[in-house]
Amino acid sequence: MRNMIIASTSTIHGTSFLSYLLPTILEEIKNQDIEQLLFIPYARPGAISHDEYTTKVKTAFNNSDIKVKGIHEFADPKKALEDAKAIFTGGGNTFVLVKMLHDLDLMVALRKKMYNGAFYVGTSAGSNICGLNMRNTNDMPIVMPSSFKTTGAIGYNINAHYLDPDPSSTHMGETREQRIQEFHAYNSLPVVGLREGSYIRVKGQEEILCGEHPARIFKQNHDAIEVSTGYNFAQITD
Amino acid sequence: MRNMIIASTSTIHGTSFLSYLLPTILEEIKNQDIEQLLFIPYARPGAISHDEYTTKVKTAFNNSDIKVKGIHEFADPKKALEDAKAIFTGGGNTFVLVKMLHDLDLMVALRKKMYNGAFYVGTSAGSNICGLNMRNTNDMPIVMPSSFKTTGAIGYNINAHYLDPDPSSTHMGETREQRIQEFHAYNSLPVVGLREGSYIRVKGQEEILCGEHPARIFKQNHDAIEVSTGYNFAQITD
Repeated sequence: MRNMIIASTSTIHGTSFLSYLLPTILEEIKNQDIEQLLFIPYARPGAISHDEYTTKVKTAFNNSDIKVKGIHEFADPKKALEDAKAIFTGGGNTFVLVKMLHDLDLMVALRKKMYNGAFYVGTSAGSNICGLNMRNTNDMPIVMPSSFKTTGAIGYNINAHYLDPDPSSTHMGETREQRIQEFHAYNSLPVVGLREGSYIRVKGQEEILCGEHPARIFKQNHDAIEVSTGYNFAQITD
Repeated sequence: MRNMIIASTSTIHGTSFLSYLLPTILEEIKNQDIEQLLFIPYARPGAISHDEYTTKVKTAFNNSDIKVKGIHEFADPKKALEDAKAIFTGGGNTFVLVKMLHDLDLMVALRKKMYNGAFYVGTSAGSNICGLNMRNTNDMPIVMPSSFKTTGAIGYNINAHYLDPDPSSTHMGETREQRIQEFHAYNSLPVVGLREGSYIRVKGQEEILCGEHPARIFKQNHDAIEVSTGYNFAQITD
């Protein structure tokens, strides 16, 4: 059964990296006697190196017993993924992340791990890859992946860092809601706009909204709706 | 020789569609005795139809003698493009625009027109395609083009609707500058951030910044610089 945390962001403004998610992650790790967390640093925020990004994650888990290891440290990343009991994919650029996962033939292996019950934590780009494709990322297409397909661990796409329109703005670029509406001119898949601080806790058949903010659901040919903490997204695709 | 207007946006807040560019466009059309403007509506802002978008452009030119015709109205769009003396590509979604231009085999034909002196006006997505590739678009990847390559009418990429960071923001998503810096971890091409209201007037070898705002130039391994109205971008790639 699935056991995942799909978070809009790694970091809430004014707090440290991962701090708001750590209690939930550590509880799960303790419950399952997990000794090692496999970190996927491929999204490279600010284009930092895989080592630098992994060090940042190690620091966040300094006060716990869990050992963090970057997937890039293994000679055979696919085997490392297949052996992992807990996996964390951090944010950065979704195009860079998806290109690496396809180039290294890891996307399908990751999907299998998610459905076979490995504990998975994704933040931002790491959450975008939980949907069926990456067509709702906010990132700049700085590299070209071989495919936009992602894991399909959930039956809809995530728009991470979802941002409400600023009514005082004079900027003429599209709002996030307009961009998602355009997506629905070409795609039928539902999209969940997850505000920073919100995450989806997936356990088996349940996909529960956690955190203090409501989330916004966009479905083709429907008005967007707001759903509150505790909502089960599994019903979206009914 | 090239004869182009490469604009950040079609519309400045509080003014009507194209109004700030119309005097320059109409002057050029008059000087060259151009009778017809070929409109490329493929970017479909808000996913409106090609007809609806073309009607919007026709309305903007209502008080002039120029006849506007959408490229989708021709049985052979490639021939329509090859025959055109003036071409306007409007904004919308850059992924949708680039996919259409590649699918219909129009990208190289468009490049040839630009270098052979057809009068070209681009706004937003229509300006993004003047660079060497579309890797600096702000748009959502709602469809997958066969390639990110664009016309290369200029030797750098455009970031249209360039937006300065908001120092009061608590949002954790990347700023525009951070996104372009990440681009330079994987790409060596310079990028010009064009603020809304700015445009580049290309005539032969000259590529002059027009409008009231400075523009921002990003080069790999260099700090970003601000340049004022009148700056010639042709020197960027020296």
